[in-house]
Amino acid sequence: MAQKVNINADMGEGHGAYDIGNDAALLKIVRSANVACGFHGGDASVMHGVVTAAKAEGVSIGAHPSFNDLWGFGRRQIDMDATELEHMVAYQIGALMAMASYAGLTVTHVKAHGALNNMACVRPDYAMAIGRAIKTVDPGLINLVLPNTELEKAGEELGLVMAREAFVDRLYEDDATLTSRKIQGAVIKDPAFAAERVVNMVRNQVIYSRHGKEIPAKIDSLCVHGDEPTALAVAEAARKGLEDAGIEIVPLPEMIH
Amino acid sequence: MAQKVNINADMGEGHGAYDIGNDAALLKIVRSANVACGFHGGDASVMHGVVTAAKAEGVSIGAHPSFNDLWGFGRRQIDMDATELEHMVAYQIGALMAMASYAGLTVTHVKAHGALNNMACVRPDYAMAIGRAIKTVDPGLINLVLPNTELEKAGEELGLVMAREAFVDRLYEDDATLTSRKIQGAVIKDPAFAAERVVNMVRNQVIYSRHGKEIPAKIDSLCVHGDEPTALAVAEAARKGLEDAGIEIVPLPEMIH
Amino acid sequence: MAQKVNINADMGEGHGAYDIGNDAALLKIVRSANVACGFHGGDASVMHGVVTAAKAEGVSIGAHPSFNDLWGFGRRQIDMDATELEHMVAYQIGALMAMASYAGLTVTHVKAHGALNNMACVRPDYAMAIGRAIKTVDPGLINLVLPNTELEKAGEELGLVMAREAFVDRLYEDDATLTSRKIQGAVIKDPAFAAERVVNMVRNQVIYSRHGKEIPAKIDSLCVHGDEPTALAVAEAARKGLEDAGIEIVPLPEMIH
Amino acid sequence: MAQKVNINADMGEGHGAYDIGNDAALLKIVRSANVACGFHGGDASVMHGVVTAAKAEGVSIGAHPSFNDLWGFGRRQIDMDATELEHMVAYQIGALMAMASYAGLTVTHVKAHGALNNMACVRPDYAMAIGRAIKTVDPGLINLVLPNTELEKAGEELGLVMAREAFVDRLYEDDATLTSRKIQGAVIKDPAFAAERVVNMVRNQVIYSRHGKEIPAKIDSLCVHGDEPTALAVAEAARKGLEDAGIEIVPLPEMIH
Repeated sequence: MAQKVNINADMGEGHGAYDIGNDAALLKIVRSANVACGFHGGDASVMHGVVTAAKAEGVSIGAHPSFNDLWGFGRRQIDMDATELEHMVAYQIGALMAMASYAGLTVTHVKAHGALNNMACVRPDYAMAIGRAIKTVDPGLINLVLPNTELEKAGEELGLVMAREAFVDRLYEDDATLTSRKIQGAVIKDPAFAAERVVNMVRNQVIYSRHGKEIPAKIDSLCVHGDEPTALAVAEAARKGLEDAGIEIVPLPEMIH
Repeated sequence: MAQKVNINADMGEGHGAYDIGNDAALLKIVRSANVACGFHGGDASVMHGVVTAAKAEGVSIGAHPSFNDLWGFGRRQIDMDATELEHMVAYQIGALMAMASYAGLTVTHVKAHGALNNMACVRPDYAMAIGRAIKTVDPGLINLVLPNTELEKAGEELGLVMAREAFVDRLYEDDATLTSRKIQGAVIKDPAFAAERVVNMVRNQVIYSRHGKEIPAKIDSLCVHGDEPTALAVAEAARKGLEDAGIEIVPLPEMIH
Repeated sequence: MAQKVNINADMGEGHGAYDIGNDAALLKIVRSANVACGFHGGDASVMHGVVTAAKAEGVSIGAHPSFNDLWGFGRRQIDMDATELEHMVAYQIGALMAMASYAGLTVTHVKAHGALNNMACVRPDYAMAIGRAIKTVDPGLINLVLPNTELEKAGEELGLVMAREAFVDRLYEDDATLTSRKIQGAVIKDPAFAAERVVNMVRNQVIYSRHGKEIPAKIDSLCVHGDEPTALAVAEAARKGLEDAGIEIVPLPEMIH
Repeated sequence: MAQKVNINADMGEGHGAYDIGNDAALLKIVRSANVACGFHGGDASVMHGVVTAAKAEGVSIGAHPSFNDLWGFGRRQIDMDATELEHMVAYQIGALMAMASYAGLTVTHVKAHGALNNMACVRPDYAMAIGRAIKTVDPGLINLVLPNTELEKAGEELGLVMAREAFVDRLYEDDATLTSRKIQGAVIKDPAFAAERVVNMVRNQVIYSRHGKEIPAKIDSLCVHGDEPTALAVAEAARKGLEDAGIEIVPLPEMIH
């Protein structure tokens, strides 16, 4: 039986008259879309557009909740009450569920956005807030997380359905955290290198640190980006490399048993 | 068998540090709450508070969607694309559904807020937009409307579950529209008068115009307000008058067969 | 002495992570920028960027106030209290004045944006609201308007410094109003045609209707757009045509005597 | 010659339909108002109301800029780019300057709000951002700060006009920082105690720590609050106590020489 993996990307991050990213191209690469829910990007009509396109491409959808930060694109860390955060996340998931009705789709996962994701990786209160929101709104939702984080720990503690992701275009440190973008080469821009590396990561279920260390890791999904031409080329090469290696690219729910 | 009627009011219209209205008092009077969904008032935590309190009081909940207009409290008429409006309404309904999960409640109706409601009473495109949003997100949702409006017509055309409301504290014209607030006495502030009048309205299923005309009207629900002391006194008197007259006050879904 | 005219365009309409328009190219064509003030587009840092670039190019700046409508890009007509609108316009002008300090520039004109401009052309209360805001904040500010509108009338009544604009890329009706975009050809996309036409408009101080009528008009400024490639080509051709015809392109204040 | 001191309070923090605080009562107590600028509270019309009332009472006004956080009332710490913060502060100052024109008032000071103030007390980049915004928009503006903070240090480094404030209703630690609200009694609610204490603070130019330590401090202004009945009673008692002690209460600019 063929090995399988999911590919996910953030989408629907435009807003009103504003366009951003390259959703059309990404929809040909990924099998799951993290849909912005209006708090850092996206609005009801943008969400409608993404779920409709995702349906047409057989791409599964997840909520991509964020801090209330349209002006900072959800990249500003905000210190707020964890219960208010929990409600804010639940609100966004519900909003996407309604928009998914337009495409006859079901929301199947949740992946926190930007600064919220970063903070929830290290702050247990934020991680639990996201987890509780998921559990309350729909305990069947897959919690898509970076492994070895508070976000993963909280999801496990709450008994959520979990999926772990790895990055196609980012280097890792020896402790499996992402190499800071400030380090030269932290973002992989060479499609061929990325493709070869990702095939090995999936095949061997390991992450390679930039110092050559092999770190065992369960990889259910690969995160790609579309915000610049090289990112898209890297994503396309990764997808092709995986397929050429006989690895099947599937929507996220198919990774869960 | 006792005659029945519902009483509804707008609630949860505070936002962040801002409080408004008198939800605690209204929850003792009404059987259905129209919950602000964050666009003209309300936020995820305010919504959480309202649905929790509604559950405790046995009050059914509905979405109270609005234009995106926190600064104008949803009272400014906005001319926008009807499809974008439809999506915006669907988004708000979904957001409330998620928050209702916290109380184990189901959202059972939708009533448009302020300027959106006013415009949808006379603009077929807006009326249909609201109706289509309801039909797409959950065709079982009750569309709570003013009778003899485009909003009612659109709901009927779409085959929605409909409920009609009358106002406890407002005078009517001979054509069953509300008397403008600019006319002296348009807002009823005398609790005794309001109570007697509302009992007759429900018993006879008529609206009384300010010129004495009796207009036949199906009255499933009575709308009350809590934004000033006299409004609350009028609402309390109306509720007591109805009960004293042997009319049972029930949640909105019980009015539908 | 050479004939003179100003060219203006809307700029700085991006927001946070969102970019829109083509400010860099427009800054080489225009002599005056209408700077978005954060209500339909723009934010403090985008405004900082525009005023800095305008200073470098010798381009004068004006406030481009709007309804509070980031999600509709200021293109949605909003019916609001005229006094609240007046304050909202004053607020935006002041905000730009502060940002202009960074470039050592003075704000020299005001031109209302999108739906606000459209409404103020026909609603005296909105026209007066804009005029009073200008008069209160700085009575020396030039009120840049479409001629034959309530906006012009209000400005004259208030004794404001006035400038009138004509459109380079739009057809006109016989009554000097713009031809609806719904009419085929309403937006001029042929650079050569636009250039020849605009030179005649400025030279003869007339507007040509699409039926061939010549309407006398004082033209202080020409409005161009950069939101699509043809708009930019038309703007460039217009500028070159004017220069080739010996007409000097100057900042807006130089048009006022 | 009589000793003098200023009293300041935050005002104009309502928004649209939302009211908060007790501006009318505070205006009878303070001589300087910190006016919310629309980012955590306030809007153009609320600002108009405050500056008009301040003018009538002979109260000087200052900008009270905040993070962009209406939903968190500016109490959420936000980690953002310091240059973007600087522009955001400048924007808010300019907006208030425009609104002040309506009352014929000049903005004479700046005091950062809530979480922004707290962060700028300890983060040099934020403190410098606020200072540079002041210096750019109007170097004559008084920077009203807590002494012994990065905010004070930055203002001094930039050569700004400085004023230092002390709190009427808060206890202090031995290092002159405010006692955490989590500590029992951190907020002073006894008017008589507050009045006696504040007279001694001003007379002796010292802050008393809750352990009895006397910390020399230049006190130009006393900060009072109006958000709850006890706060207002404390503020009133403080003002009366100071006057009874022969200390003159003056607008902030009169404290600067």
